[in-house]
Amino acid sequence: MPTLGLALMGTGRMAHVYGPKINAHPGLRLEVVYNPRIASAQKAADLYCGRAMDDLNVVLSDPKVDAVVIATPTDTHVDYIEMAARAGKPIYCEKPLDQSLDRVERAMAALDAHPVPFMLGFNRRFDPDNAALREAVRRGEIGRINMLMSWSREPSPPPIEYVRTSGGYFVDATIHDIDLLCWIAGERPVEVTATGSCMFDSEIGAEGDFDMTMTTLKMPSGALVHINNSRSCAYGFDQRLEAFGNAGMVQTLNHRDDNLVRWDARRTAAREPLKHFFLERYDQSFYNALDEFHGAIIAGRPPSATAQDGKAALTIALACVQSAKAGVTIKPTYS
Amino acid sequence: MPTLGLALMGTGRMAHVYGPKINAHPGLRLEVVYNPRIASAQKAADLYCGRAMDDLNVVLSDPKVDAVVIATPTDTHVDYIEMAARAGKPIYCEKPLDQSLDRVERAMAALDAHPVPFMLGFNRRFDPDNAALREAVRRGEIGRINMLMSWSREPSPPPIEYVRTSGGYFVDATIHDIDLLCWIAGERPVEVTATGSCMFDSEIGAEGDFDMTMTTLKMPSGALVHINNSRSCAYGFDQRLEAFGNAGMVQTLNHRDDNLVRWDARRTAAREPLKHFFLERYDQSFYNALDEFHGAIIAGRPPSATAQDGKAALTIALACVQSAKAGVTIKPTYS
Amino acid sequence: MPTLGLALMGTGRMAHVYGPKINAHPGLRLEVVYNPRIASAQKAADLYCGRAMDDLNVVLSDPKVDAVVIATPTDTHVDYIEMAARAGKPIYCEKPLDQSLDRVERAMAALDAHPVPFMLGFNRRFDPDNAALREAVRRGEIGRINMLMSWSREPSPPPIEYVRTSGGYFVDATIHDIDLLCWIAGERPVEVTATGSCMFDSEIGAEGDFDMTMTTLKMPSGALVHINNSRSCAYGFDQRLEAFGNAGMVQTLNHRDDNLVRWDARRTAAREPLKHFFLERYDQSFYNALDEFHGAIIAGRPPSATAQDGKAALTIALACVQSAKAGVTIKPTYS
Amino acid sequence: MPTLGLALMGTGRMAHVYGPKINAHPGLRLEVVYNPRIASAQKAADLYCGRAMDDLNVVLSDPKVDAVVIATPTDTHVDYIEMAARAGKPIYCEKPLDQSLDRVERAMAALDAHPVPFMLGFNRRFDPDNAALREAVRRGEIGRINMLMSWSREPSPPPIEYVRTSGGYFVDATIHDIDLLCWIAGERPVEVTATGSCMFDSEIGAEGDFDMTMTTLKMPSGALVHINNSRSCAYGFDQRLEAFGNAGMVQTLNHRDDNLVRWDARRTAAREPLKHFFLERYDQSFYNALDEFHGAIIAGRPPSATAQDGKAALTIALACVQSAKAGVTIKPTYS
Repeated sequence: MPTLGLALMGTGRMAHVYGPKINAHPGLRLEVVYNPRIASAQKAADLYCGRAMDDLNVVLSDPKVDAVVIATPTDTHVDYIEMAARAGKPIYCEKPLDQSLDRVERAMAALDAHPVPFMLGFNRRFDPDNAALREAVRRGEIGRINMLMSWSREPSPPPIEYVRTSGGYFVDATIHDIDLLCWIAGERPVEVTATGSCMFDSEIGAEGDFDMTMTTLKMPSGALVHINNSRSCAYGFDQRLEAFGNAGMVQTLNHRDDNLVRWDARRTAAREPLKHFFLERYDQSFYNALDEFHGAIIAGRPPSATAQDGKAALTIALACVQSAKAGVTIKPTYS
Repeated sequence: MPTLGLALMGTGRMAHVYGPKINAHPGLRLEVVYNPRIASAQKAADLYCGRAMDDLNVVLSDPKVDAVVIATPTDTHVDYIEMAARAGKPIYCEKPLDQSLDRVERAMAALDAHPVPFMLGFNRRFDPDNAALREAVRRGEIGRINMLMSWSREPSPPPIEYVRTSGGYFVDATIHDIDLLCWIAGERPVEVTATGSCMFDSEIGAEGDFDMTMTTLKMPSGALVHINNSRSCAYGFDQRLEAFGNAGMVQTLNHRDDNLVRWDARRTAAREPLKHFFLERYDQSFYNALDEFHGAIIAGRPPSATAQDGKAALTIALACVQSAKAGVTIKPTYS
Repeated sequence: MPTLGLALMGTGRMAHVYGPKINAHPGLRLEVVYNPRIASAQKAADLYCGRAMDDLNVVLSDPKVDAVVIATPTDTHVDYIEMAARAGKPIYCEKPLDQSLDRVERAMAALDAHPVPFMLGFNRRFDPDNAALREAVRRGEIGRINMLMSWSREPSPPPIEYVRTSGGYFVDATIHDIDLLCWIAGERPVEVTATGSCMFDSEIGAEGDFDMTMTTLKMPSGALVHINNSRSCAYGFDQRLEAFGNAGMVQTLNHRDDNLVRWDARRTAAREPLKHFFLERYDQSFYNALDEFHGAIIAGRPPSATAQDGKAALTIALACVQSAKAGVTIKPTYS
Repeated sequence: MPTLGLALMGTGRMAHVYGPKINAHPGLRLEVVYNPRIASAQKAADLYCGRAMDDLNVVLSDPKVDAVVIATPTDTHVDYIEMAARAGKPIYCEKPLDQSLDRVERAMAALDAHPVPFMLGFNRRFDPDNAALREAVRRGEIGRINMLMSWSREPSPPPIEYVRTSGGYFVDATIHDIDLLCWIAGERPVEVTATGSCMFDSEIGAEGDFDMTMTTLKMPSGALVHINNSRSCAYGFDQRLEAFGNAGMVQTLNHRDDNLVRWDARRTAAREPLKHFFLERYDQSFYNALDEFHGAIIAGRPPSATAQDGKAALTIALACVQSAKAGVTIKPTYS
């Protein structure tokens, strides 16, 4: 399998998701770990057998670096995309592109000017169950799509510092469901209506953000979409999809660490709590996303999950924010 | 068990739901079947061993008639309530009270002037599973209520004539989910947002009505509510509830005719299609509703499911209509 | 519906199962309750609106008694069958016919000499789920039957006095599974192998009886049958069937009082404990068995569940006893 | 992680199970592939990046070979164990040790004389679900073990040539369930009773073998065990465990390729067919078994799944053969 040398940019949580998967993938080689603080870069480089670098220009001119994986803080994504595109390096960028549509358009302009292969890390598309549901829908198992539903309930609220810079719950989290459901539906909403509330964590409310939301999308076909988000969930990371069509319905089940069923005097047919959070639940999807990136570059085809998809998802998420604040349905425009 | 003599008003579909249940209940006696067309009254009276009558004044002055069950067309409910209230007869009235808030208020004024026991037939409250879910929530099994969800998907669209006089999908059907969820929540929404579409039956769309809707309610506590309605469903009458709280979740399962699980080369762990429609699925609930009516009158306490509940549910359903048409969130007022 | 006047013989637990069901059945009339102690008869007669009698000859010559339901202690069944048969009364007899094959043959001789309609109360055949499983098998859903399995685990051991006169676990309880599985299979075993153990209640072991057994039957077709019995079960009355064929498998699910699914921090997708015991689980089956008896007599056809079935089941149960004691496979003969 | 150089002996189906797992394990190095036919060895060696060898003495004196993995035909296991033991090499041997107790004892004598670390490939112990069930039982979740049940139904009968040299169904397949259940129970049966039949493949019957068996074991504690085996299964590779105790029950669920639930007009809540066969279902278990072997050797402790376990399982499987043929319960002895 032809091998691709990668520069992993960033040394935070997401970098540590991608590091081991790059090492496990037979077609990928971790060449460089980049962080402007060399000590951080070195620590991660030691872990994943790469070279530590703190100068991005050096990274981008390294002949062994065939492509970059951007896993840095969100507000750096656009700058790094511009630099990598100019250097002609294929780019895998952790989502979201940015929290601002203006800056997203700047990234897209750079990619237009320097058309390198680009993939946005909408990892949930690459989860085997989500992909199998889409396949079942595409095969016509449910007939025409009439309704789509997605639940994403997180085990517990993030630190308030995270919330403050997250762009808000819709932009930070709902955006995942939005992209996934548009990808399954094969269309983007003409109407966006969202409602939010704050019942778990009053600090989040004090920031003007929500910790529970319900979002309704109306598609050009007439299909209706419901997105159910919560920052807290007692029984684990609740991740479900439901696609309802005129010929039937298909759903995805939650994941657990074991497949035992327990019967006792209090409860019967009981299962374990769910996988704890996205790292546990979607572990495989990150590997599969890198595999898609690798396969596309090797085959010379554009990777799925494009910058346009990222812009559209952000547009919809921002419409959610607006709808929830103003109590009106928003008709987004996709230029 | 003290017995109550009933006049069953009406001989349509709902009258034939109540007739056999009155006969099966040890505390109820079917005395009279009323229909202005005496032949229709006689046919039903023969079936359920009552006396046929076509003069409502005679019915309401019959000393063996202790109470009335109104199962006539919706637009007659208010008139009959006024007459029965004036005659001092306890009233069980099939839902909805009326499609117009003005007329609902007229009925309530009559009940204020002549305070007879009154019960509105919100039968889904009396379904054993729905009641068990409410009980579980009340016992604190899920902690505080954060989200409620209700699915009501019907097997196939009603005749277009029915649709035309139904008051629209929200008033005809969503009103059931609305009442049930407010009853479970113990509160009524401060914000109502609804979206509709028409994908199954273009005749329904031509009437300006929807055959699929998604409704979001926001409660005073902050709890969010989703209602999922469809006029068509390939796999039967899909009826589900989900109550999500800070300590857990409780759901109700769909009903089937048998409890077999089937495994073959195409599908494993498969179950039968669902019960066909509301008559099959909610059969027990109509009996239980009559039992509540009987028990309340015998005990001298007001029956649950009041005219106020009916008015509130209609107010909310009308807010759904308005929200779906105008694309804005409505803040209903409950006078 | 033509009505049948019944004499209910006995006033013990099973009589109180049948009493309310006779009253609820539109084609049955409880005429007489018989007990040699008139006070006991009177108490039950008051409850079920019949006449109390303590002289069986009077009962059997009462012109309003069209048939008898024998729900007396097992050791009286044969005598009462002989008397009722001589009197020309159709007989519904609670299982087992008797614990001794000799006495069973005496009953069968009486029925040969006085061929009245006779039905043995193998109620589990009339359980809707068990019947639906047999129907699915008969329709060919699983192809040919290769294996059958039945679980009957009781919530807790009976009083030791009951155990002492029960004929042993195989004759008292396994006999139900035996009849049910032979009825589903449409054939009777050519080989019987059984193993028992006593781990729950040492008093049962002291009587030489078992409180857990596993029984294997081999059918003429080659099909293998497993019966799994336990006198104790922490999570309720565990009743399952599994029919495995060359084209698939069909199973029955356990019953619960509600259809809720519970999710919390300890357990997910959990259901209630099972129905407590046979009275709760098989309530409907007793009504259905009486309905079969009524329908057969009205139609002039022999009721299903014959004396021959009872004799065969007892023959197999006694073979289980012998196999478990001697550690050898027994080849039963059915004369 | 300290690395162990392995000689993989054999190039058949099981060798191709172990090859990729040795390569994937960070603590294992595939040094040599051995086959007396060098061309076969070379082909597999190329695949897994090892050196091909056809002389076992050379293999066993290679200083880079730290241990051997025996994945050759069953009738060679004992000879190769003797040679490897004499050479002082730790041994991982695919099950069964041999089909003959005499030869098994020869292997054990060799291991006594040359006490190298030895592990028998009872891979099902290392399946995460089976291990989780045992852990749950050990933690006391079900109280005391009263009953254990295991289902192993294969998708379709093996070629008749395989059957002929397999030692019969009990020795070839039931032996897996036997080992797994004794390992979970923590004890070995004092009584063995088995029944077999042949309904799927008449060629198997013509060989005097069975294609369906039911086995009952009685444990010293009194616990009863049922093993359910079939050479054919329409819906895939049916693998289930059920552990029933005085405080509850725990079961393992079957595995599928996806986690979708399908609802349509014919079937609801339906899942995919099961994983096809043992290579798909137990893939992870083979990796975990090698990991146990590696961990034990590195830590200097004996690997679990010993030669004694293999001998005991064979003793019990041979008792099954004898019981099924003679129709008597066998009391095995474990010297």
